[in-house]
Amino acid sequence: VPDDGRQRSRLRAERNDGVQNRQRILAAATIVVARDGLGVPLATVAAEAGVGIGTLYRHFPNRAALLDGLVVGSLRLVLDELRDAAAEAATAIDAVRGYFLRMVERRDQLVLPLRGGPAVTSTEATGLRDEVRRALAGILARGGADGTIREGITPLDLILLATMVSQPLPGIADWDRYARRAVGLYLAGLAPYDGRRLTDDGIS
Amino acid sequence: VPDDGRQRSRLRAERNDGVQNRQRILAAATIVVARDGLGVPLATVAAEAGVGIGTLYRHFPNRAALLDGLVVGSLRLVLDELRDAAAEAATAIDAVRGYFLRMVERRDQLVLPLRGGPAVTSTEATGLRDEVRRALAGILARGGADGTIREGITPLDLILLATMVSQPLPGIADWDRYARRAVGLYLAGLAPYDGRRLTDDGIS
Repeated sequence: VPDDGRQRSRLRAERNDGVQNRQRILAAATIVVARDGLGVPLATVAAEAGVGIGTLYRHFPNRAALLDGLVVGSLRLVLDELRDAAAEAATAIDAVRGYFLRMVERRDQLVLPLRGGPAVTSTEATGLRDEVRRALAGILARGGADGTIREGITPLDLILLATMVSQPLPGIADWDRYARRAVGLYLAGLAPYDGRRLTDDGIS
Repeated sequence: VPDDGRQRSRLRAERNDGVQNRQRILAAATIVVARDGLGVPLATVAAEAGVGIGTLYRHFPNRAALLDGLVVGSLRLVLDELRDAAAEAATAIDAVRGYFLRMVERRDQLVLPLRGGPAVTSTEATGLRDEVRRALAGILARGGADGTIREGITPLDLILLATMVSQPLPGIADWDRYARRAVGLYLAGLAPYDGRRLTDDGIS
Protein backbone atom coordinates (compact mmCIF):
# COMPACT_ATOMS: atom_id res chain seq x y z
CA VAL A 1 0.00 0.00 0.00
CA PRO A 2 1.72 3.25 -1.11
CA ASP A 3 0.47 5.27 1.91
CA ASP A 4 1.95 2.79 4.41
CA GLY A 5 5.26 2.85 2.53
CA ARG A 6 5.38 6.64 2.64
CA GLN A 7 4.65 6.64 6.40
CA ARG A 8 7.34 4.04 7.18
CA SER A 9 9.84 6.03 5.17
CA ARG A 10 8.84 9.24 7.00
CA LEU A 11 9.24 7.55 10.41
CA ARG A 12 12.64 6.20 9.39
CA ALA A 13 13.75 9.68 8.29
CA GLU A 14 12.61 11.11 11.63
CA ARG A 15 14.55 8.43 13.49
CA ASN A 16 17.66 9.21 11.42
CA ASP A 17 17.23 12.92 12.18
CA GLY A 18 17.01 12.04 15.87
CA VAL A 19 20.22 10.01 15.79
CA GLN A 20 21.99 12.77 13.86
CA ASN A 21 20.81 15.43 16.31
CA ARG A 22 22.00 13.36 19.27
CA GLN A 23 25.45 12.99 17.68
CA ARG A 24 25.59 16.70 16.87
CA ILE A 25 24.67 17.64 20.44
CA LEU A 26 27.34 15.32 21.88
CA ALA A 27 30.00 16.60 19.45
CA ALA A 28 29.10 20.21 20.31
CA ALA A 29 29.07 19.48 24.05
CA THR A 30 32.55 17.89 23.80
CA ILE A 31 33.87 21.15 22.36
CA VAL A 32 32.14 23.61 24.69
CA VAL A 33 32.76 21.55 27.85
CA ALA A 34 36.50 21.44 27.00
CA ARG A 35 36.42 25.21 26.43
CA ASP A 36 34.05 26.47 29.16
CA GLY A 37 33.98 23.70 31.76
CA LEU A 38 31.33 21.35 33.15
CA GLY A 39 29.01 24.23 34.09
CA VAL A 40 28.59 25.54 30.54
CA PRO A 41 24.97 26.67 29.89
CA LEU A 42 22.98 24.05 27.96
CA ALA A 43 21.79 26.87 25.68
CA THR A 44 25.43 27.29 24.59
CA VAL A 45 25.59 23.58 23.77
CA ALA A 46 22.37 23.77 21.74
CA ALA A 47 23.59 26.86 19.85
CA GLU A 48 26.95 25.21 19.07
CA ALA A 49 25.09 22.11 17.82
CA GLY A 50 22.71 24.21 15.71
CA VAL A 51 19.60 22.75 17.37
CA GLY A 52 16.87 24.31 19.52
CA ILE A 53 17.03 23.96 23.29
CA GLY A 54 13.83 21.84 23.12
CA THR A 55 15.58 19.32 20.89
CA LEU A 56 18.50 19.17 23.33
CA TYR A 57 16.14 18.48 26.27
CA ARG A 58 14.34 15.80 24.26
CA HIS A 59 17.62 13.88 23.99
CA PHE A 60 19.12 14.84 27.38
CA PRO A 61 16.54 15.83 30.03
CA ASN A 62 19.18 17.52 32.23
CA ARG A 63 22.86 18.38 32.54
CA ALA A 64 23.72 15.11 34.32
CA ALA A 65 22.25 13.11 31.44
CA LEU A 66 24.23 15.10 28.88
CA LEU A 67 27.51 14.77 30.84
CA ASP A 68 26.92 11.05 31.26
CA GLY A 69 26.33 10.82 27.51
CA LEU A 70 29.76 12.41 26.97
CA VAL A 71 31.53 10.02 29.36
CA VAL A 72 29.76 6.98 27.91
CA GLY A 73 30.68 8.05 24.37
CA SER A 74 34.31 8.66 25.37
CA LEU A 75 34.65 5.32 27.17
CA ARG A 76 33.13 3.53 24.20
CA LEU A 77 35.67 5.24 21.92
CA VAL A 78 38.54 4.25 24.24
CA LEU A 79 37.31 0.65 24.34
CA ASP A 80 36.96 0.45 20.55
CA GLU A 81 40.46 1.89 20.00
CA LEU A 82 41.91 -0.41 22.64
CA ARG A 83 40.38 -3.52 21.09
CA ASP A 84 41.49 -2.48 17.60
CA ALA A 85 45.04 -1.82 18.89
CA ALA A 86 45.14 -5.22 20.61
CA ALA A 87 43.76 -7.04 17.54
CA GLU A 88 46.28 -5.42 15.16
CA ALA A 89 49.36 -5.84 17.34
CA ALA A 90 51.89 -8.67 16.94
CA THR A 91 53.00 -8.31 20.59
CA ALA A 92 51.58 -6.92 23.81
CA ILE A 93 53.97 -3.95 23.87
CA ASP A 94 52.85 -3.10 20.32
CA ALA A 95 49.26 -3.13 21.58
CA VAL A 96 50.24 -0.65 24.31
CA ARG A 97 51.98 1.53 21.71
CA GLY A 98 48.82 1.48 19.61
CA TYR A 99 46.69 2.36 22.65
CA PHE A 100 48.89 5.34 23.61
CA LEU A 101 49.13 6.70 20.05
CA ARG A 102 45.38 6.31 19.47
CA MET A 103 44.66 8.23 22.68
CA VAL A 104 47.02 11.00 21.52
CA GLU A 105 45.20 11.09 18.18
CA ARG A 106 41.69 11.06 19.69
CA ARG A 107 42.51 13.51 22.48
CA ASP A 108 40.00 16.20 21.44
CA GLN A 109 37.13 13.70 21.55
CA LEU A 110 37.71 12.44 25.09
CA VAL A 111 35.67 13.74 28.05
CA LEU A 112 36.80 11.66 31.02
CA PRO A 113 37.17 12.09 34.79
CA LEU A 114 41.01 12.05 34.70
CA ARG A 115 40.86 14.92 32.21
CA GLY A 116 38.64 17.06 34.44
CA GLY A 117 35.44 15.65 32.96
CA PRO A 118 32.40 14.43 34.90
CA ALA A 119 32.64 11.42 37.22
CA VAL A 120 31.62 7.93 36.12
CA THR A 121 28.28 7.35 37.82
CA SER A 122 25.74 5.62 35.55
CA THR A 123 25.56 1.85 35.28
CA GLU A 124 26.46 2.09 31.60
CA ALA A 125 29.55 4.26 32.21
CA THR A 126 30.70 2.08 35.12
CA GLY A 127 30.35 -1.04 32.99
CA LEU A 128 32.36 0.49 30.15
CA ARG A 129 35.09 1.68 32.54
CA ASP A 130 35.39 -1.84 33.93
CA GLU A 131 35.58 -3.24 30.39
CA VAL A 132 38.45 -0.83 29.57
CA ARG A 133 40.34 -2.02 32.65
CA ARG A 134 39.71 -5.66 31.75
CA ALA A 135 40.95 -5.07 28.20
CA LEU A 136 44.13 -3.47 29.57
CA ALA A 137 44.58 -6.31 32.07
CA GLY A 138 44.31 -8.69 29.12
CA ILE A 139 47.09 -6.86 27.27
CA LEU A 140 49.29 -6.90 30.39
CA ALA A 141 48.70 -10.66 30.80
CA ARG A 142 49.63 -11.14 27.15
CA GLY A 143 52.78 -9.09 27.82
CA GLY A 144 53.73 -11.43 30.64
CA ALA A 145 53.22 -14.41 28.35
CA ASP A 146 55.07 -13.02 25.31
CA GLY A 147 57.78 -11.41 27.45
CA THR A 148 57.35 -7.89 26.04
CA ILE A 149 56.03 -6.12 29.18
CA ARG A 150 57.68 -5.78 32.57
CA GLU A 151 56.02 -7.34 35.62
CA GLY A 152 54.16 -5.21 38.15
CA ILE A 153 52.41 -2.86 35.71
CA THR A 154 48.69 -2.25 36.40
CA PRO A 155 45.86 -1.11 34.10
CA LEU A 156 45.74 2.19 36.04
CA ASP A 157 49.46 2.79 35.35
CA LEU A 158 48.72 2.53 31.61
CA ILE A 159 45.62 4.73 31.89
CA LEU A 160 47.61 7.46 33.68
CA LEU A 161 50.43 7.36 31.11
CA ALA A 162 47.90 7.52 28.26
CA THR A 163 46.23 10.51 29.93
CA MET A 164 49.55 12.32 30.44
CA VAL A 165 50.55 12.13 26.77
CA SER A 166 47.08 12.86 25.43
CA GLN A 167 46.68 16.19 27.27
CA PRO A 168 48.84 18.83 25.55
CA LEU A 169 50.77 21.07 27.94
CA PRO A 170 50.21 24.78 27.26
CA GLY A 171 52.76 26.54 25.06
CA ILE A 172 54.04 23.40 23.28
CA ALA A 173 53.37 24.09 19.60
CA ASP A 174 54.02 20.58 18.24
CA TRP A 175 52.44 18.36 20.87
CA ASP A 176 52.22 15.32 18.60
CA ARG A 177 56.00 15.30 18.22
CA TYR A 178 56.67 15.49 21.98
CA ALA A 179 53.91 13.03 22.75
CA ARG A 180 55.52 10.51 20.37
CA ARG A 181 58.90 11.03 22.08
CA ALA A 182 57.30 10.50 25.50
CA VAL A 183 55.51 7.37 24.24
CA GLY A 184 58.87 6.05 23.04
CA LEU A 185 60.31 6.51 26.53
CA TYR A 186 57.22 4.98 28.20
CA LEU A 187 57.45 1.89 26.01
CA ALA A 188 61.16 1.49 26.75
CA GLY A 189 60.30 1.76 30.46
CA LEU A 190 57.49 -0.78 30.18
CA ALA A 191 59.72 -3.29 28.37
CA PRO A 192 61.51 -5.77 30.65
CA TYR A 193 65.07 -5.01 29.44
CA ASP A 194 66.58 -5.13 32.92
CA GLY A 195 64.42 -7.99 34.17
CA ARG A 196 63.14 -6.02 37.16
CA ARG A 197 59.53 -5.33 38.14
CA LEU A 198 57.73 -2.03 38.74
CA THR A 199 56.78 -1.36 42.35
CA ASP A 200 55.52 1.69 44.25
CA ASP A 201 59.17 2.54 44.92
CA GLY A 202 60.08 2.39 41.26
CA ILE A 203 61.84 -0.39 39.37
CA SER A 204 63.42 -2.77 41.82
CA VAL B 1 75.38 57.49 69.67
CA PRO B 2 72.25 55.74 71.03
CA ASP B 3 69.83 57.66 68.75
CA ASP B 4 71.69 56.58 65.59
CA GLY B 5 71.67 52.98 66.78
CA ARG B 6 67.92 53.07 67.35
CA GLN B 7 67.33 54.54 63.88
CA ARG B 8 69.51 51.94 62.15
CA SER B 9 67.71 49.19 64.00
CA ARG B 10 64.31 50.69 63.00
CA LEU B 11 65.34 50.87 59.31
CA ARG B 12 66.56 47.28 59.44
CA ALA B 13 63.25 46.15 60.94
CA GLU B 14 61.34 47.98 58.16
CA ARG B 15 63.48 46.29 55.50
CA ASN B 16 62.81 42.90 57.08
CA ASP B 17 59.07 43.65 57.12
CA GLY B 18 59.31 44.55 53.44
CA VAL B 19 61.02 41.25 52.55
CA GLN B 20 58.50 39.32 54.63
CA ASN B 21 55.55 41.08 52.99
CA ARG B 22 56.96 40.38 49.52
CA GLN B 23 57.30 36.67 50.38
CA ARG B 24 53.79 36.57 51.86
CA ILE B 25 52.32 38.20 48.76
CA LEU B 26 54.11 35.73 46.44
CA ALA B 27 53.04 32.74 48.56
CA ALA B 28 49.42 33.97 48.58
CA ALA B 29 49.49 34.67 44.84
CA THR B 30 50.78 31.13 44.17
CA ILE B 31 47.72 29.74 45.96
CA VAL B 32 45.04 32.01 44.47
CA VAL B 33 46.44 31.90 40.91
CA ALA B 34 46.36 28.07 41.05
CA ARG B 35 42.79 28.26 42.35
CA ASP B 36 41.27 31.17 40.38
CA GLY B 37 43.55 31.58 37.34
CA LEU B 38 45.83 34.31 36.02
CA GLY B 39 43.06 36.93 36.07
CA VAL B 40 42.42 36.72 39.83
CA PRO B 41 41.76 40.21 41.31
CA LEU B 42 44.86 41.65 43.00
CA ALA B 43 42.61 42.55 45.97
CA THR B 44 42.06 38.80 46.46
CA VAL B 45 45.82 38.25 46.51
CA ALA B 46 46.29 41.06 49.07
CA ALA B 47 43.48 39.67 51.27
CA GLU B 48 44.93 36.13 51.13
CA ALA B 49 48.37 37.55 52.07
CA GLY B 50 46.88 39.60 54.92
CA VAL B 51 48.30 42.88 53.59
CA GLY B 52 46.64 46.05 52.30
CA ILE B 53 46.29 46.60 48.55
CA GLY B 54 48.68 49.58 48.89
CA THR B 55 51.40 47.29 50.25
CA LEU B 56 50.85 44.90 47.35
CA TYR B 57 51.20 47.73 44.80
CA ARG B 58 54.37 48.99 46.56
CA HIS B 59 55.99 45.60 45.85
CA PHE B 60 54.32 44.83 42.50
CA PRO B 61 53.11 47.92 40.58
CA ASN B 62 50.83 45.84 38.32
CA ARG B 63 49.61 42.32 37.53
CA ALA B 64 52.40 41.65 35.04
CA ALA B 65 55.02 42.43 37.70
CA LEU B 66 53.34 40.11 40.20
CA LEU B 67 53.02 37.26 37.68
CA ASP B 68 56.64 37.70 36.65
CA GLY B 69 57.60 37.54 40.32
CA LEU B 70 55.82 34.16 40.55
CA VAL B 71 57.58 32.76 37.48
CA VAL B 72 60.99 34.05 38.60
CA GLY B 73 60.49 32.54 42.06
CA SER B 74 59.38 29.20 40.56
CA LEU B 75 62.30 29.03 38.13
CA ARG B 76 64.74 29.85 40.93
CA LEU B 77 63.23 27.02 43.00
CA VAL B 78 63.52 24.59 40.07
CA LEU B 79 67.15 25.63 39.49
CA ASP B 80 68.06 25.23 43.18
CA GLU B 81 66.44 21.79 43.35
CA LEU B 82 68.08 20.73 40.11
CA ARG B 83 71.55 21.76 41.29
CA ASP B 84 71.04 20.07 44.65
CA ALA B 85 69.85 16.89 42.91
CA ALA B 86 72.87 16.92 40.57
CA ALA B 87 75.32 17.58 43.42
CA GLU B 88 73.92 14.77 45.58
CA ALA B 89 73.67 12.12 42.86
CA ALA B 90 76.28 9.44 42.26
CA THR B 91 75.19 9.06 38.63
CA ALA B 92 73.38 11.14 36.02
CA ILE B 93 70.26 8.97 36.12
CA ASP B 94 70.16 9.44 39.90
CA ALA B 95 70.28 13.19 39.31
CA VAL B 96 67.27 12.90 36.98
CA ARG B 97 65.45 10.80 39.61
CA GLY B 98 66.15 13.51 42.19
CA TYR B 99 64.93 16.22 39.81
CA PHE B 100 61.65 14.39 39.06
CA LEU B 101 60.92 13.55 42.71
CA ARG B 102 61.74 17.10 43.86
CA MET B 103 59.36 18.52 41.26
CA VAL B 104 56.63 16.13 42.49
CA GLU B 105 57.29 17.29 46.05
CA ARG B 106 57.38 21.02 45.21
CA ARG B 107 54.40 20.88 42.85
CA ASP B 108 52.17 23.28 44.80
CA GLN B 109 54.86 25.99 44.73
CA LEU B 110 55.40 26.02 40.96
CA VAL B 111 53.79 28.66 38.72
CA LEU B 112 55.21 28.00 35.26
CA PRO B 113 54.07 28.38 31.64
CA LEU B 114 53.79 24.61 31.05
CA ARG B 115 51.43 24.44 34.02
CA GLY B 116 49.13 27.15 32.65
CA GLY B 117 51.09 29.92 34.39
CA PRO B 118 52.19 33.21 32.82
CA ALA B 119 54.70 33.26 29.95
CA VAL B 120 58.42 33.85 30.53
CA THR B 121 58.97 37.43 29.37
CA SER B 122 61.30 39.40 31.68
CA THR B 123 65.08 39.30 31.26
CA GLU B 124 65.42 37.73 34.69
CA ALA B 125 62.89 34.94 33.96
CA THR B 126 64.41 34.25 30.53
CA GLY B 127 67.88 34.01 32.06
CA LEU B 128 66.71 31.57 34.72
CA ARG B 129 64.85 29.42 32.18
CA ASP B 130 68.04 29.21 30.10
CA GLU B 131 70.02 28.27 33.22
CA VAL B 132 67.56 25.44 33.96
CA ARG B 133 68.00 24.10 30.42
CA ARG B 134 71.79 24.34 30.70
CA ALA B 135 71.74 22.49 34.02
CA LEU B 136 69.63 19.71 32.44
CA ALA B 137 71.93 19.60 29.40
CA GLY B 138 74.82 19.17 31.85
CA ILE B 139 73.09 16.21 33.49
CA LEU B 140 72.41 14.64 30.07
CA ALA B 141 76.06 15.09 29.05
CA ARG B 142 77.10 13.47 32.33
CA GLY B 143 74.69 10.61 31.53
CA GLY B 144 76.40 10.10 28.17
CA ALA B 145 79.77 9.99 29.89
CA ASP B 146 78.79 7.69 32.77
CA GLY B 147 76.58 5.54 30.53
CA THR B 148 73.42 5.87 32.65
CA ILE B 149 71.24 7.85 30.20
CA ARG B 150 70.17 6.91 26.70
CA GLU B 151 71.31 9.05 23.75
CA GLY B 152 68.93 11.46 22.03
CA ILE B 153 67.21 12.83 25.16
CA THR B 154 66.82 16.63 25.28
CA PRO B 155 66.36 19.03 28.23
CA LEU B 156 62.80 19.69 27.02
CA ASP B 157 62.01 15.94 27.12
CA LEU B 158 62.98 15.95 30.82
CA ILE B 159 61.05 19.14 31.53
CA LEU B 160 57.89 17.69 29.96
CA LEU B 161 58.19 14.42 31.92
CA ALA B 162 58.75 16.37 35.16
CA THR B 163 55.68 18.49 34.41
CA MET B 164 53.53 15.43 33.67
CA VAL B 165 54.27 13.74 37.01
CA SER B 166 54.11 16.94 39.06
CA GLN B 167 50.56 17.86 38.00
CA PRO B 168 48.09 15.55 39.75
CA LEU B 169 45.30 14.22 37.55
CA PRO B 170 41.83 14.84 39.02
CA GLY B 171 40.28 12.02 41.02
CA ILE B 172 43.54 10.24 41.91
CA ALA B 173 43.57 10.24 45.71
CA ASP B 174 47.20 9.17 46.23
CA TRP B 175 49.05 11.11 43.56
CA ASP B 176 52.46 10.72 45.21
CA ARG B 177 52.21 6.95 44.89
CA TYR B 178 51.27 7.00 41.20
CA ALA B 179 53.81 9.74 40.45
CA ARG B 180 56.56 7.56 41.97
CA ARG B 181 55.45 4.61 39.83
CA ALA B 182 55.49 6.80 36.70
CA VAL B 183 58.94 8.15 37.65
CA GLY B 184 60.17 4.54 37.97
CA LEU B 185 58.96 3.84 34.42
CA TYR B 186 60.43 7.10 33.07
CA LEU B 187 63.83 6.29 34.54
CA ALA B 188 63.76 2.77 33.10
CA GLY B 189 62.92 4.34 29.71
CA LEU B 190 65.70 6.91 30.00
CA ALA B 191 68.30 4.25 30.88
CA PRO B 192 70.15 2.78 27.87
CA TYR B 193 69.31 -0.89 28.55
CA ASP B 194 68.69 -1.71 24.91
CA GLY B 195 71.46 0.50 23.51
CA ARG B 196 69.12 2.43 21.24
CA ARG B 197 68.57 6.21 21.09
CA LEU B 198 65.38 8.26 21.45
CA THR B 199 64.15 9.90 18.25
CA ASP B 200 60.94 11.65 17.22
CA ASP B 201 59.69 8.24 16.09
CA GLY B 202 60.38 6.63 19.44
CA ILE B 203 63.32 4.45 20.44
CA SER B 204 65.11 3.22 17.32
